[in-house]
Amino acid sequence: IEIYKHLKEERIARTWGTTAPGLPYVEETITKAGNWLIGGDLEVIEPIKYHDGLDRFRLSPVELRQEFEKRNADAVFAFQLRNPVHNGHALLMTDTRRRLLEMGYKNPILLLHPLGGYTKADDVPLSWRMKQHEKVLEDGVLDPETTVVSIFPSPMHYAGPTEVQWHAKARINAGANFYIVGRDPAGMGHPIEKRDLYDADHGKKVLSMAPGLERLNILPFRVAAYDKTQSKMAFFDPSRAQDFLFISGTKMRALAKNKENPPDGFMCPGGWKVLVKYYDSLTPSDNGRIHEAVPA
Amino acid sequence: IEIYKHLKEERIARTWGTTAPGLPYVEETITKAGNWLIGGDLEVIEPIKYHDGLDRFRLSPVELRQEFEKRNADAVFAFQLRNPVHNGHALLMTDTRRRLLEMGYKNPILLLHPLGGYTKADDVPLSWRMKQHEKVLEDGVLDPETTVVSIFPSPMHYAGPTEVQWHAKARINAGANFYIVGRDPAGMGHPIEKRDLYDADHGKKVLSMAPGLERLNILPFRVAAYDKTQSKMAFFDPSRAQDFLFISGTKMRALAKNKENPPDGFMCPGGWKVLVKYYDSLTPSDNGRIHEAVPA
Repeated sequence: IEIYKHLKEERIARTWGTTAPGLPYVEETITKAGNWLIGGDLEVIEPIKYHDGLDRFRLSPVELRQEFEKRNADAVFAFQLRNPVHNGHALLMTDTRRRLLEMGYKNPILLLHPLGGYTKADDVPLSWRMKQHEKVLEDGVLDPETTVVSIFPSPMHYAGPTEVQWHAKARINAGANFYIVGRDPAGMGHPIEKRDLYDADHGKKVLSMAPGLERLNILPFRVAAYDKTQSKMAFFDPSRAQDFLFISGTKMRALAKNKENPPDGFMCPGGWKVLVKYYDSLTPSDNGRIHEAVPA
Repeated sequence: IEIYKHLKEERIARTWGTTAPGLPYVEETITKAGNWLIGGDLEVIEPIKYHDGLDRFRLSPVELRQEFEKRNADAVFAFQLRNPVHNGHALLMTDTRRRLLEMGYKNPILLLHPLGGYTKADDVPLSWRMKQHEKVLEDGVLDPETTVVSIFPSPMHYAGPTEVQWHAKARINAGANFYIVGRDPAGMGHPIEKRDLYDADHGKKVLSMAPGLERLNILPFRVAAYDKTQSKMAFFDPSRAQDFLFISGTKMRALAKNKENPPDGFMCPGGWKVLVKYYDSLTPSDNGRIHEAVPA
């Protein structure tokens, strides 16, 4: 057992690259924590159960490896997410599978690995996201035969290039050998300035250089957006930028809250209904204000 | 050539582990710098000359390697410093040589590598430090036969565990295979709180784990202090703490400024005279106030 000082300022500065007030995980966890930390080797005596109806999705790294073996995977590609799956995400995942088949793999398996710990107040809670993911598989947007859905039991730090290394490394441990990384992974807006906290390319860049990640193949992706000419999500083509619509998380949430529909082809209807239902479930007093953050 | 945004806040937070105002290198260089940076491969067309009488000490990594070869070194141990050499430093260096001989090396050579770039206002300027180092060799505190004195042309960041990696890595490139690291390397007080900015052991710890430094042997050292019973600098023995006197940089500077002598055996007399002369050379208007920082 190791006991050491909790150097909060240094931890925050080195993890987030800022000490500005308003970082969600800092306010949720670090500020409230004590001034000493305990470390050392952990021994898991029995698996932790949450009894929230989702424990069957909480596969340990060993269980995930067994599942991939059972399915005879010759490649495993992981997709980290903390949001409902829209067809832009699905495009990244199905296109990755296509690329892996082209590379000669016979049976690439997708690890759809939604984050299951703390998320900030305006993110959709895990239980609703899991319902939404279920619909996405039911509606055939993703193929259940080649997809393993499991919960990644980590709190969200929103720490961009620092956190993406943990996200990737943890998936190596669970048997993944390909990791999909998009624009600004684990990023958010600067807490007090009107700009993104991180350079959108730094996550990708850090992954390509980080020690310990040599065994992981990083699959960077162009950004997907809604192509109005095709009425579907497609890889953004800057040469005809005017044909594309970027539907941000904020925009998506506003539509679902107001029970409006997004453009056809943005998300499968079953999945969208889950979101509308979630926002509908918030008690009237919750309307108009930010919902509580979900504890880890 | 690569041109990229100068993300000052993120750079400062990740380098220093704080964004508090008052970090010397930040105020000297980063705050004043522009919002874009240029990177890429450098080609040195001819060696840079400073014409300050010290250029003969500015050996490039290649020249240093040649010098070690000329001296038939079978081990090179590097000592980074930005302060006058007192007998505590000398003890670390001579004891390292003793340990290396014990380990079986026949001809360990010391690279005494004072930092020659920007230092903060209350550090002793390079030209005076070089005079002081010369006296230390003349007075036989260090053996000129087994010591190479050269200037490390880097600005001082005072960035503790981050900077010590650069300090060590740069010396590997210059041919060193042993690196002496003491308490709180490259550390300083927190700019706005009454405590040290870094944990005194983190520099050592980071060096032992940093990727790219596997080839370097880190030689951690106990702290040296003035042993009143022996009237000399010795490794601090906590079991008889009352026998020891810690003479801080601040204390040393105060003594030299007031033309007082430190306890016998703290520094060789020739070296001490240089310091007294330096403080004497400051114009009267400088007395009592902090001297200007030395530009890189």
